[in-house]
Amino acid sequence: MKAWTLAARPKGTPVDGDFALVERDLPALNEGEVRIVNRWLSVDPYMRGRMNDTKSYVPPFQLGEPMQGGAIGEVVESRADGIAVGTMVSHMAGWRDEAVLPAAHVQPLPDLGVDPQAYLGQFGMPGMTAYYGLLQVAEAKPGDTVFVSAAAGAVGSTVVQIAKAKGMTVIGSAGGAEKCDWVRSLGADAVIDYKSGQSVVDALGEAAPDGIDVYFDNVGGDHLDAALAHAKPNARFAICGMIDVYNDAKPTSLTYLARLIGNRVRIQGFIVSDFKDQPGFYRDMAGMLKDGQLKREETVFEGLDRTPEAFLALFTGGNKGKMLVKL
Amino acid sequence: MKAWTLAARPKGTPVDGDFALVERDLPALNEGEVRIVNRWLSVDPYMRGRMNDTKSYVPPFQLGEPMQGGAIGEVVESRADGIAVGTMVSHMAGWRDEAVLPAAHVQPLPDLGVDPQAYLGQFGMPGMTAYYGLLQVAEAKPGDTVFVSAAAGAVGSTVVQIAKAKGMTVIGSAGGAEKCDWVRSLGADAVIDYKSGQSVVDALGEAAPDGIDVYFDNVGGDHLDAALAHAKPNARFAICGMIDVYNDAKPTSLTYLARLIGNRVRIQGFIVSDFKDQPGFYRDMAGMLKDGQLKREETVFEGLDRTPEAFLALFTGGNKGKMLVKL
Repeated sequence: MKAWTLAARPKGTPVDGDFALVERDLPALNEGEVRIVNRWLSVDPYMRGRMNDTKSYVPPFQLGEPMQGGAIGEVVESRADGIAVGTMVSHMAGWRDEAVLPAAHVQPLPDLGVDPQAYLGQFGMPGMTAYYGLLQVAEAKPGDTVFVSAAAGAVGSTVVQIAKAKGMTVIGSAGGAEKCDWVRSLGADAVIDYKSGQSVVDALGEAAPDGIDVYFDNVGGDHLDAALAHAKPNARFAICGMIDVYNDAKPTSLTYLARLIGNRVRIQGFIVSDFKDQPGFYRDMAGMLKDGQLKREETVFEGLDRTPEAFLALFTGGNKGKMLVKL
Repeated sequence: MKAWTLAARPKGTPVDGDFALVERDLPALNEGEVRIVNRWLSVDPYMRGRMNDTKSYVPPFQLGEPMQGGAIGEVVESRADGIAVGTMVSHMAGWRDEAVLPAAHVQPLPDLGVDPQAYLGQFGMPGMTAYYGLLQVAEAKPGDTVFVSAAAGAVGSTVVQIAKAKGMTVIGSAGGAEKCDWVRSLGADAVIDYKSGQSVVDALGEAAPDGIDVYFDNVGGDHLDAALAHAKPNARFAICGMIDVYNDAKPTSLTYLARLIGNRVRIQGFIVSDFKDQPGFYRDMAGMLKDGQLKREETVFEGLDRTPEAFLALFTGGNKGKMLVKL
């Protein structure tokens, strides 16, 4: 099998030399294991954190070892009861073309009538992040005004659509006219182009003159500060990511932080894996899909060779919707 | 009556000229009103916000009008049923020596066997802030490790004592050896002297090597950042105040903010008045007092003339315990 390893721990923005493609022999199957040929790989902003040698909610990638990440593959050999050859499965042995895994580490794809790669996006980790972050962490309700940053990304674009399907007013931010048009086409009531030159705090004030009830944060920095400036009383912020500081470990400067006191704002960090065993997600998302309330967009890089390139493009705004690598 | 008015809106730290002592005639009593001679006035950090002309959870002080604030006084004339002359009451017509108020705006003091001025401190707004902030907003539980900033202040010193009475480990911060010794005498397990030259983040790391479950914030800034750096998974922060930015509206720079994601930290701003009608506070505090678990300390300025001086000393670390003006 071929796999991408971390050759060096990135300093700031990763560079090509931080990654190395290696070949490894895979072992024969033990009882209870399956052999998988990967068809789709996921690259996600959170992976940047695993490239640092620091304790976090997921352990750091080990230097010289294949990296991990979401992947969809086909079972080509099986010694596991109940997983037949030909089954499409999702698993975490990404960044490679083939894997041998115990059956407990793979999930056969549910039959919801969507393409397999959707289980890396709206019907996978990014979708669950959007769904549970918006509805459970932020407790967003019909009638709420919701601000979501990085609204053209895999998570943000799903937040926009779930919020609209649930009867909320939605303001999204994205970088550049093309992405902003796309976010608007998803149903957003207003879109802020953070590359327009206008400050996010001013733009949000115009888009939400009565303030916001919910902020779904994928960015941090000036977006979080703008949300603090325009938070209504009892606003809830679900903090999903801060791509602003993933590569560049600079301090975050917040001018409007103290407003959280008078407005009783709640800021809650969360990790989607805390929610993964909860019911409702697939049923609710399948219903929205059937009702035409979910549009899917993917940015696809072809070939294992291009995996680092796809990953790096996440940080330069290179994707609309879910960033994927097709093998 | 004599009253302190706001003569000018302060720019940054207030100066003497921002305040003016005026004389006003008080009207004869209408039905349902009482005349009060004030005995004790409260000065509190939150009043700084009311000196700005900005919308907040309490309206701004009006220029040229007597300011408001907590006060304890004696009823000297009454046309209100059920409030006899001689009754000691608490009310919000502070910064003055005398007031005429409708009975609905005054609360006769409960009979808990404490000095009247205690109802401006541990048995009043600062005590309720400590109690509800710690136990309800931060959901602090026996066994938790609690970090509280400005632990020598009226609120912070009460947080320390409630937390110890409830079986928590407590780390307080205060400025200078004398205050730190006092906080330690209240039962704190460790005390950080933020004037020592050591960074708060390093000092907290030494005081709480396993991290903190709860942070009770009266300061903001470097204290909040240190709490983020050392938060355990599922830590809860109750944000009561940010004296760091009340006079100097500088941005807050947070190096460790993104850690709130992986650690699922909850940051909740709160206002004590949201809790004022809840039961339990007086009963629980009276029990702690009886059990010898509450020590009270006051810093007292004598005379209405010195009210602005007492207020300004809050921002230079001039008080141990509750800052009061005795008339």
